[in-house]
Amino acid sequence: MERKHLHLKGPELSRIVAGAWRWNAEADVHRLVSVSLEAGITSFDHADIYGDYGNEKIFGEVLRKNPGLRKNMQLITKCGIKLLSGHHRKTWIKHYDTSKEHILASVDNSLKALGTDYIDLLLIHRPDPLLDPEEVSETFGLLKQNGKVLHFGVSNFSNTQFEMLQSYLPFPLVTNQVEVSLSKLDALYDGTLDTLLRFKACPMAWSPLGGGRLMSAASALWSKKESYKATETQLSLAWLLKHPSGMFPVIGTTQPERVIESAKAININLDRQDWFEMLKIASGRDVP
Amino acid sequence: MERKHLHLKGPELSRIVAGAWRWNAEADVHRLVSVSLEAGITSFDHADIYGDYGNEKIFGEVLRKNPGLRKNMQLITKCGIKLLSGHHRKTWIKHYDTSKEHILASVDNSLKALGTDYIDLLLIHRPDPLLDPEEVSETFGLLKQNGKVLHFGVSNFSNTQFEMLQSYLPFPLVTNQVEVSLSKLDALYDGTLDTLLRFKACPMAWSPLGGGRLMSAASALWSKKESYKATETQLSLAWLLKHPSGMFPVIGTTQPERVIESAKAININLDRQDWFEMLKIASGRDVP
Amino acid sequence: MERKHLHLKGPELSRIVAGAWRWNAEADVHRLVSVSLEAGITSFDHADIYGDYGNEKIFGEVLRKNPGLRKNMQLITKCGIKLLSGHHRKTWIKHYDTSKEHILASVDNSLKALGTDYIDLLLIHRPDPLLDPEEVSETFGLLKQNGKVLHFGVSNFSNTQFEMLQSYLPFPLVTNQVEVSLSKLDALYDGTLDTLLRFKACPMAWSPLGGGRLMSAASALWSKKESYKATETQLSLAWLLKHPSGMFPVIGTTQPERVIESAKAININLDRQDWFEMLKIASGRDVP
Repeated sequence: MERKHLHLKGPELSRIVAGAWRWNAEADVHRLVSVSLEAGITSFDHADIYGDYGNEKIFGEVLRKNPGLRKNMQLITKCGIKLLSGHHRKTWIKHYDTSKEHILASVDNSLKALGTDYIDLLLIHRPDPLLDPEEVSETFGLLKQNGKVLHFGVSNFSNTQFEMLQSYLPFPLVTNQVEVSLSKLDALYDGTLDTLLRFKACPMAWSPLGGGRLMSAASALWSKKESYKATETQLSLAWLLKHPSGMFPVIGTTQPERVIESAKAININLDRQDWFEMLKIASGRDVP
Repeated sequence: MERKHLHLKGPELSRIVAGAWRWNAEADVHRLVSVSLEAGITSFDHADIYGDYGNEKIFGEVLRKNPGLRKNMQLITKCGIKLLSGHHRKTWIKHYDTSKEHILASVDNSLKALGTDYIDLLLIHRPDPLLDPEEVSETFGLLKQNGKVLHFGVSNFSNTQFEMLQSYLPFPLVTNQVEVSLSKLDALYDGTLDTLLRFKACPMAWSPLGGGRLMSAASALWSKKESYKATETQLSLAWLLKHPSGMFPVIGTTQPERVIESAKAININLDRQDWFEMLKIASGRDVP
Repeated sequence: MERKHLHLKGPELSRIVAGAWRWNAEADVHRLVSVSLEAGITSFDHADIYGDYGNEKIFGEVLRKNPGLRKNMQLITKCGIKLLSGHHRKTWIKHYDTSKEHILASVDNSLKALGTDYIDLLLIHRPDPLLDPEEVSETFGLLKQNGKVLHFGVSNFSNTQFEMLQSYLPFPLVTNQVEVSLSKLDALYDGTLDTLLRFKACPMAWSPLGGGRLMSAASALWSKKESYKATETQLSLAWLLKHPSGMFPVIGTTQPERVIESAKAININLDRQDWFEMLKIASGRDVP
């Protein structure tokens, strides 16, 4: 598996990232971690809220039982959303909180749950309209200084939000994790990928398979399966991997065999015309 | 009343600004000025065109009769629109004019009408498609040099227009006065507030009560009136004041008692969840 | 005919540019070139693909027969689109290609077809989603170094695409050639012209007459024909020429007499109010 820096000054991640969004009590997380690592997927994407604030702890159990694993993996997590949850009784409406107090508390919770003493990459989960960039800058600075977080980024930010927050920070935002796939092309056209290229920060792509919508869709999209000896999943990921912004797809599967399948996408180099044919089918139109 | 710099190098204004849009011959402008000042509202927002080119003169009468007032207040005015008006017979179509000739003439008219020898803040009223940034830069420079205008800004500008004009100026645009309220949320989502935060220029908010549309709307929006011991107007202003961009609401009332009511909004610190509940009701949806 | 630099470090072009899009085998290209030059139109806009990859060669015939012409003209061409064509059998789907290999090959083809040893200005024809800015920067650098291309620009790029590519180049993009006319006003409102003003690169305007749609439209638009002693075409071009971004309209006619007619637009200085009246009629609304 190719490894690559998200940013010149950012962490080195496996080009395909395993997302722990659905790695809850019903999933075999121990096996998923093993299989991922064997397949070369060394980077794991979390959020404080995944699994109703529970998935980080389940993942942490694996690390606690296998203390040697941590040094060979990169842990990403997110904060800034407060969900209605039995775990947070003071929250009575879903909202965002990017205050210093909440970010610091959320990181401490994540560290404890994950059973680690540092997070490789912390993302602000959503653009909080009440985000105070000076406060966030101070908070990130503290977390960097005390070694709890090595690198910082954002998720679901617009171009102006990204550029605004960056302008307050003394170090780079190393990514913007956004939804992008053959069934969600907005980031290619609304400037999201352009802006990241300009800041030399690679995108992370969530829902890179379009939440399964693609698989049930137009079979024409998969006409090249045989020539590439590839599955729909692999073609979908290879299509993202070819983009010059250097995307890191975050796969969300809970099935070990699908992890293995996905990891192999890294070896597919789509031909330029095949890439444009897939774009044409996905977007429903020829390029202008 | 809190006072605050619009920009590090900009004027210090009262956090709530009195708008003279409707302070015409039918309003008791003398009383409105007194009441505003007593309430700590020391900044007054004009435009050459308000009241069919008449309101600045009416305001000026107050200053002429009370020469001591000027030094304790900040005067903002705008130029760049030419209205169909009996006062401007050469204009036969509503249009914009940001030529050197027109800006200089408009400022001289405003100074004479207001009975003052300087304007604290001059805004280009609307983005003129024929705006020549080199000409505007030269004109602003002249006005700054001869002391007629202390600071400059714009109104109703898009992000690209703001950044473009700024790039031609040797000093900062200290604000963009835009429409924003609980019933007009665009500026929160289209990058307007992000861009101002990036340039460290505070927004001024016109029509901060949504032109009254809010007051007749969903009563759910005002469910917190009792707990804050506040009126609808005060909650609406407090909602804007909490935004980290540091907005300066420009109230437009002609009723002295409403000026007093509005000024008290400054003391309300909305709880984060209450703020998000108001956003949810105003936007009709939960945050994603 | 006024001549003007597209950018301080860009080529000096005639303010009106002759577009060779339809200068194919059925047009009298020799006469069109002569008439253009006599009218002061010294800049010619090509693309590799015009006339199914044939128009550059037809234009080149004129130069080969009249070797003295080249030094008095500026040649612009474009690359980056691959059309379905009998001339390019390996292409089976319309797509974009901004790889080093394709740009270098396309420039060599254009030089050979046009019968010249340098191109004054090369544009990337469309924003290629697979454009790799490092590769393009390296390729432009090579072409500049070996003297095959003097200046570089883009066409149909969005603001974020322009700014992104510019950030990778050690020299300025000198233009963005975009569609703009009284019947296609988007560039005035979507930031395209603002961004070019910020980068001090003048726009080139393709389809400046709206592909003829304007001519058959509302006669009110042409109410000033008599007072300016001008045709519809001339008023349309004069309207674009007045914009402070310094547009260079690219006319597309194949009729010599229309070239002469268009060239005269340069002498019309529209009154500001007339300009706004035309905007009002074209946009269907008053300025706000």
